[in-house]
Amino acid sequence: MADRPARAEIGVTTGPLPASRKVYVPGRLFPDIRVPFREIALSGGEPPFRVYDTSGPYTDPAAAIDITQGLPRLRDPWIEARADTERTEGRPVRPEDNGQRHGAATRLEARPFPHPNRRPRRARSGAVTQLAYAKAGIVTPEMEFVAIRENLGREAALDRRPDGESFGAAIPPHVTPEFVRDEIARGRAILPANINHPELEPMAIGRNFLVKINANIGNSAVASSVAEEVDKMVWAIRWGADTVMDLSTGRNIHDTREWILRNAPVPIGTVPIYQALEKVGGVAEELSWEIFRDTLIEQAEQGVDYFTIHAGVRLAYIPLTANRVTGIVSRGGSIMAKWCLAHHRESFLYERFDEICEILRAYDVSFSLGDGLRPGSIADANDRAQFAELETLGELTRRAWAMDCQVMIEGPGHVPMHRIRENMDRQLEACGEAPFYTLGPLTTDIAPGYDHITSAIGAAMIGWFGTAMLCYVTPKEHLGLPDRDDVKTGVITYRLAAHAADLAKGHPAAQLRDHALSKARFEFRWRDQFNLSLDPETAERFHDQTLPAEGAKTAHFCSMCGPKFCSMKITQDVRDYAARHNAAERLEAEAGMAEKSREFREMGGEIYVPNEAPSGL
Amino acid sequence: MADRPARAEIGVTTGPLPASRKVYVPGRLFPDIRVPFREIALSGGEPPFRVYDTSGPYTDPAAAIDITQGLPRLRDPWIEARADTERTEGRPVRPEDNGQRHGAATRLEARPFPHPNRRPRRARSGAVTQLAYAKAGIVTPEMEFVAIRENLGREAALDRRPDGESFGAAIPPHVTPEFVRDEIARGRAILPANINHPELEPMAIGRNFLVKINANIGNSAVASSVAEEVDKMVWAIRWGADTVMDLSTGRNIHDTREWILRNAPVPIGTVPIYQALEKVGGVAEELSWEIFRDTLIEQAEQGVDYFTIHAGVRLAYIPLTANRVTGIVSRGGSIMAKWCLAHHRESFLYERFDEICEILRAYDVSFSLGDGLRPGSIADANDRAQFAELETLGELTRRAWAMDCQVMIEGPGHVPMHRIRENMDRQLEACGEAPFYTLGPLTTDIAPGYDHITSAIGAAMIGWFGTAMLCYVTPKEHLGLPDRDDVKTGVITYRLAAHAADLAKGHPAAQLRDHALSKARFEFRWRDQFNLSLDPETAERFHDQTLPAEGAKTAHFCSMCGPKFCSMKITQDVRDYAARHNAAERLEAEAGMAEKSREFREMGGEIYVPNEAPSGL
Repeated sequence: MADRPARAEIGVTTGPLPASRKVYVPGRLFPDIRVPFREIALSGGEPPFRVYDTSGPYTDPAAAIDITQGLPRLRDPWIEARADTERTEGRPVRPEDNGQRHGAATRLEARPFPHPNRRPRRARSGAVTQLAYAKAGIVTPEMEFVAIRENLGREAALDRRPDGESFGAAIPPHVTPEFVRDEIARGRAILPANINHPELEPMAIGRNFLVKINANIGNSAVASSVAEEVDKMVWAIRWGADTVMDLSTGRNIHDTREWILRNAPVPIGTVPIYQALEKVGGVAEELSWEIFRDTLIEQAEQGVDYFTIHAGVRLAYIPLTANRVTGIVSRGGSIMAKWCLAHHRESFLYERFDEICEILRAYDVSFSLGDGLRPGSIADANDRAQFAELETLGELTRRAWAMDCQVMIEGPGHVPMHRIRENMDRQLEACGEAPFYTLGPLTTDIAPGYDHITSAIGAAMIGWFGTAMLCYVTPKEHLGLPDRDDVKTGVITYRLAAHAADLAKGHPAAQLRDHALSKARFEFRWRDQFNLSLDPETAERFHDQTLPAEGAKTAHFCSMCGPKFCSMKITQDVRDYAARHNAAERLEAEAGMAEKSREFREMGGEIYVPNEAPSGL
Repeated sequence: MADRPARAEIGVTTGPLPASRKVYVPGRLFPDIRVPFREIALSGGEPPFRVYDTSGPYTDPAAAIDITQGLPRLRDPWIEARADTERTEGRPVRPEDNGQRHGAATRLEARPFPHPNRRPRRARSGAVTQLAYAKAGIVTPEMEFVAIRENLGREAALDRRPDGESFGAAIPPHVTPEFVRDEIARGRAILPANINHPELEPMAIGRNFLVKINANIGNSAVASSVAEEVDKMVWAIRWGADTVMDLSTGRNIHDTREWILRNAPVPIGTVPIYQALEKVGGVAEELSWEIFRDTLIEQAEQGVDYFTIHAGVRLAYIPLTANRVTGIVSRGGSIMAKWCLAHHRESFLYERFDEICEILRAYDVSFSLGDGLRPGSIADANDRAQFAELETLGELTRRAWAMDCQVMIEGPGHVPMHRIRENMDRQLEACGEAPFYTLGPLTTDIAPGYDHITSAIGAAMIGWFGTAMLCYVTPKEHLGLPDRDDVKTGVITYRLAAHAADLAKGHPAAQLRDHALSKARFEFRWRDQFNLSLDPETAERFHDQTLPAEGAKTAHFCSMCGPKFCSMKITQDVRDYAARHNAAERLEAEAGMAEKSREFREMGGEIYVPNEAPSGL
């Protein structure tokens, strides 16, 4: 595998995954769109296998990657063609945007991105959201892009029996651009795509699409640098993150985001209150609508695709958390709670919600309505505070929809298995089927260091029940900031959870990859098994720890049973036998057994492959 | 943490876990029994926290550990007191028991255990099983041991609201010895305890007890040694394996097992057909009832506590696997399938089942009826072959019960989430509520290298639905043999899955540990959080990767938000505020806000702790 650092001081991992090449499928309505897929070459006469590809140009050897230039602005002509936006002077960058509140003495840890999004776009008037177009019956290039992307492999799957329990989802056999438009128009899906993030390869988040995953990155006051965060973003999408949230809270927060956005082919989300808090020196009470509004515009102009906004933390709900085991664990939730108590009034997020909508719809920033009162422990799951806030998120969803803003809803957190379903059912009910976006949930509190797993259990289940996007949890959750390895572990873990959910929902194409991999496994095509897996490098490395020889990768045995006996080989004998004798029926019917027995012994021949290192046995 | 190798060439890890000490609770009916628990010391005025302890004497600094001597034979007096067994000469050990079929030229990789179980016990007549005693109304010391062990923490939990969905399980608020007896008598639980394994600390496997986990170890023809396997056994129980299966298939198979059994405080399971196959040089067709019977007696005399026996692989079912994607993946299942086809008759396991029962009940070896036709891929889940075999396992369960043999039933395998429940429901129905013991199931095939996680999802769910024991899957599944690190990862992963299941089932004491850990987390008692977790060492190491200073473990902040802002700290302010103002009601009622606001500002004071390294902010 290639691991070529791009030039400049910020290095990222580029090059294709093993046995993979990038292919692009053109649009029909919009012939100039090029929808990327990864195609995995297989052996044994098997056709290449196509998978959904979140990795952007970084895995395309034909793409010239220069982090200091940013990615190609592929959506510029589409946005331009709609003729409903205008270039503006934009808000000037101020020292406090990078945490330099007390003057220039503060060390800047990274140079600013050399080609920021100057002269940002804004709506001439009203909404330039995918929701507004969808409601107007317009199919955008973004929508066709999504249709082609989501539709991957479905034709091949159509001859399979329908299988799965979707809990009321309406997954179509084939995704059309019109279907994408309709889902967005109903509010059941969002297509997060800020008009100032033209580098984005469009994707959709909704119950009737593939389950998506988000990876969180971001520096903090105590750790990590801009370079690390850009590297983590590229690394996260390499392994399958559909969106990335930049949760930076330290210095250089504006510049870090600019580097990330200009190099991100996936939607980028943020929590604007984090930066707003930095602008007031970390003193929550000093936050104001004006500072928050300024931050929204700053980030919308940069191109952030969705904002987490904790507008559901109402004053009356805050005391409901007082008797919890872990109180308020959402950072944004506790910031707003502190503000509300200090001022003893409803937050400006709630009171100014319509004004927030006005801003977001002028750039097509999607709402991710934050669950500021989500439970932080098993004990606090599904309590009054949590569900009171959810009702308010439903109210806000309807207000946002009325202003043509796209909305998804954030969900917990820590929830034992038997209380997960209630979260999904209530969310669908309260929020009119707006996409649900959950953090796990973790199904127990007792395994710090393994919370990617405690949460993958809950994530797979709630994904099955209807959650549209799963926010990853890394092994460092509750303990520290994820490093590069943790990011990969979190992404792969959530990819497998999302896929398990797609399988259980009965997604028509989901089983194809399982079948291809299992067939490769059964036929001892070791390299194909590795290459079809979510993490080919780890699969091969683990195999090699027991049987490192290259020959072992073509051998018809594995280390579990050894070369003298192999259950998969015996199964092949069973299959040959059954085929030769049309066995299923005849075996049950026949009485004379002796001839069969002799015949099998003669036919069976040598079932063992030669032992590499002959033993005394 | 201590990591002192015991003397002799076989090293194992001994010494207590962090902040932990061993405590023993005596019986009431049987005052000489000493039931072990681990007690975790906490800070902040919290009482010590007791947890279930599978680790045996190895974590007791007062115990003299000598691997060459084996563990104390604590059950000898209990077995002796029943006066229904006799000492025998025992079957002599033969060269082929250790794979030395072709003479002494084969290298022996480990010396024999110096103090094997000579003069093994056997029933004078009939059954000496816990089931026979239970049916006769006898409460054994083993049953009281289990009651005390299972009952851990329940008194403290009794004031909590009942919470959970148990799918028809009948988990009592308090476990009595009589309840244990009754569950065993009904066949709903087993207490695997061979009379030749007196070193065992009794435990129970059943739907109305805590969910248990099994760890597989064992050398193979291509890898690993006796010393490694003994070390892995001790390592697996250190982290929480309730039982261990020795799946060795290579040389020294008899001696390896003797070393393991004499040093194992947990039940040991095996798959006797593996050794029988070694005795016939790996040629399945040459297996016979005589060789299998001899192997059963050999292993029963050594003290194996449960045998996986694939007696449900009937001839007529074998062709049902011919069109599967992955055919027969169970090693035992494919051995028997090959034998059946070669001889074109029902297997000796099925035909001689009553004779097998006669042997097992003379030593109290429990049945683990193997699912030889379990699905090996998502495509093959819940098919005709699998469920046909399950019906036969139900038939065999009733035959075994009639002869007072204890029985559990093995289950899959690879099953997508929406098909898991059917497995549990059919098993309960077909097998009369005999305990279910599943391998995962894996919920997708596409993540080799991460199959501990794909399977933990399925394991947690099926554990919730009623599975009594979960067989772990390690990251090496499908790829290679687990090493020591993989064993630990597998055990911790399955411990968390089993605990998630206990929580969801509504086990009355399960939430206590979650609450204790979450409270420690909320109160920034970092060391308590580590020590209450399933893997304290990993939790602390991950924390230290971001904030290594010792001071950071008492600091009231963490690396996620940094020292300037902390959501948990703010929650404490909310709590103080609510308490001071009896807030929940008053906040909603009050109109005059200004005074409150001023008051909070004055009262709130400094919510930030001093920054360790003051920044410019």
